[in-house]
Amino acid sequence: MTELLEKAKKAKQASAELASKTTKQKNEALAAISKQLIEEISFILVENKKDVENARAKGMTEALIDRLTLNEKRIQDMADGIRQLIDLKDPVGEILDSWERPNGLQIKTVRVPLGVVGMIYEARPNVTVDAATLCLKTGNAVILRGSSSAQHSNIAISDCIRRALEGTEIPADAVQLLEDTSRETAQQLFTLTEYLDVLIPRGGKNLIQSVVEQASVPVLETGVGNCHIYIDESADKEMAIDIVINAKTQRPSVCNAAEKVLVHENWAAKYFAELAKRLQDHEVEVRGDQKAQQLAVGLKPATEEDWSTEYLDKIIAAKIVSSVEEAIEHINQYGTKHSEAIITADDQNVAKFFNEVDAAALYHNASTRFTDGFEFGFGAEIGISTQKLHARGPMGLKALTTTKYLIYGNGQIRN
Amino acid sequence: MTELLEKAKKAKQASAELASKTTKQKNEALAAISKQLIEEISFILVENKKDVENARAKGMTEALIDRLTLNEKRIQDMADGIRQLIDLKDPVGEILDSWERPNGLQIKTVRVPLGVVGMIYEARPNVTVDAATLCLKTGNAVILRGSSSAQHSNIAISDCIRRALEGTEIPADAVQLLEDTSRETAQQLFTLTEYLDVLIPRGGKNLIQSVVEQASVPVLETGVGNCHIYIDESADKEMAIDIVINAKTQRPSVCNAAEKVLVHENWAAKYFAELAKRLQDHEVEVRGDQKAQQLAVGLKPATEEDWSTEYLDKIIAAKIVSSVEEAIEHINQYGTKHSEAIITADDQNVAKFFNEVDAAALYHNASTRFTDGFEFGFGAEIGISTQKLHARGPMGLKALTTTKYLIYGNGQIRN
Repeated sequence: MTELLEKAKKAKQASAELASKTTKQKNEALAAISKQLIEEISFILVENKKDVENARAKGMTEALIDRLTLNEKRIQDMADGIRQLIDLKDPVGEILDSWERPNGLQIKTVRVPLGVVGMIYEARPNVTVDAATLCLKTGNAVILRGSSSAQHSNIAISDCIRRALEGTEIPADAVQLLEDTSRETAQQLFTLTEYLDVLIPRGGKNLIQSVVEQASVPVLETGVGNCHIYIDESADKEMAIDIVINAKTQRPSVCNAAEKVLVHENWAAKYFAELAKRLQDHEVEVRGDQKAQQLAVGLKPATEEDWSTEYLDKIIAAKIVSSVEEAIEHINQYGTKHSEAIITADDQNVAKFFNEVDAAALYHNASTRFTDGFEFGFGAEIGISTQKLHARGPMGLKALTTTKYLIYGNGQIRN
Repeated sequence: MTELLEKAKKAKQASAELASKTTKQKNEALAAISKQLIEEISFILVENKKDVENARAKGMTEALIDRLTLNEKRIQDMADGIRQLIDLKDPVGEILDSWERPNGLQIKTVRVPLGVVGMIYEARPNVTVDAATLCLKTGNAVILRGSSSAQHSNIAISDCIRRALEGTEIPADAVQLLEDTSRETAQQLFTLTEYLDVLIPRGGKNLIQSVVEQASVPVLETGVGNCHIYIDESADKEMAIDIVINAKTQRPSVCNAAEKVLVHENWAAKYFAELAKRLQDHEVEVRGDQKAQQLAVGLKPATEEDWSTEYLDKIIAAKIVSSVEEAIEHINQYGTKHSEAIITADDQNVAKFFNEVDAAALYHNASTRFTDGFEFGFGAEIGISTQKLHARGPMGLKALTTTKYLIYGNGQIRN
């Protein structure tokens, strides 16, 4: 039997056991993992160093090496994160609804774990801890398929987690890391409907797209954000500029950063030059359509390709529009259904924008950077869903659960 | 442009309009469709007759021809069904949650339409009406891809629906039937992620499997049911026999019919012979494992293949087990996560069964035949989901919706 099939079977068996564990048992296991991570810091750092050295030798960019690199503080942060997770409410077992039918059947809807989660991710060893602990908290087993570039770190961390679980009532087999990181095995994982209940890709556009295209296991799609801010005619000047600068520059590499600004022509006539200047002062490259280029200095022309690009960098493209309708149409054509904002003093335009823009999160007079499980108050985040089924927007623990109908009768048969 | 792309674009445009229609506008459109169906009965029947004659010429089975055939009463029933749908609560616009963050952001979760639904189904013209009206009620546009064997009926019905919509405030383009029913076009539909938000296959195992395997658009999987009834040691004799006979014979061709009976050895020693006899009296072919064959007369041997087969026919396979644990293990190995029942007087075994069996609907002392949107009181049914994401079990109108986060600020930026 291949490593994948063997681990998938073990994960499925473990998930059946996990489903009936109490919150207390799961939290004790999480506490043990948190403790074990601290105890094994030196070993994990030694293994991580091997990955980092290989990555440097292969010429990986500094940004990616930074994501790959662990240090004492980062492992301490992971351990702290687990302790915060312990304090969160366990969604499993919650009764969502209950009713009685005229024939006397009592029906209840109860929240249960999904079963076995497949997590596919890039070279970020912290995702190994994150995915394993979020799944355990919600009673799910997990199959982890990380990047070969982080494989020493991932093996060290998953072994550490399994060692921690051995002293608890949670089966160590609930956490399975694939040592075989080949493309062929990943593709088998995508179609393992017999053992896997959901696949969650975490990473860039290409990773997510290949999972979506190839998987027959249901996918929780996360991530790509070509987010817009529309500055309406009546927008307060300072508020609009502050929000655009924050949404663009506070952390340009993330999916909820703003990539485009659409500006009403009447606002633009008065203030666009200053908006562009202030963005440039923040080292942002501003691109613009023809009208935008006429209104401000130093703008590069924006091409058709710009409108659909997620830069993840200090670049923004500006378009001057003549109405909220034009802004909505542009967003629905080019957006990725992630986060979209309107800055305005006009409540009717807010209502129109909120109603007609098709996206997970819509903002009035606030930065798109708030689309985030922690900022929404969920206390933990699995990722940000950009699809419409199951979960949309920031996903908290509930996104890792499903429901069961429990029906209590006393001999009812159907006529 | 191909027919598919053209219709997909029109559907997407219509869905943007539909999202802001009121319940009243949608209900008026539904009433117009109900009326138009009655007015066009003779035309629809003429077109349906062509399909039925073609089907006979091709040697289609009588059961399939029956599903394909329309008559006055069946069209009247469709029209009545639409009037019942009008009375159901519109889920769109419901505020599911609202809270305030410490930074003053006001967050609301609101229920919205999915957008564009792709419905793929077999030769049942009633699904054309069903799918179109359920989607309209929930503010979704729909692309219908029926079977070529029902194409005359489907075109007549969708034209009738579009004619009805022309007199209303709902765009006729919200309902698009593909005239091209080729396999190639279906495969393009499966991957049309730019225009389609969800695919719902309605039909047999092969149809569903091919959609699940090939689609990159998210799928709402419905249908296959290899349902079990476990008769525990303490089960009331008459109740157990009545429930098994009902679940097997009341309508054997549907997914919530029982296909297997697992019997505790101590109950079996006393009553299995009578259970088998009573099933045989109802013209059910009873197959059994070795122990079952020894306990009753006239049983055929059940093979390994039997345990995973959904017969959809008057056949049942029986297995004698020595504990509730053995029953649970068997069900989790061979079941399709649809509906599973335990007949018992032992509450601890109910709790164990409900907790450990992985299925959408679990029954204590009742027939599996109740897994159905109408029987659960939802008033309408999209299908029965056997997957775990988004919706599980009988799906009512809410399964055709998603959510949006609406965030109201007054200049908040992220630190």
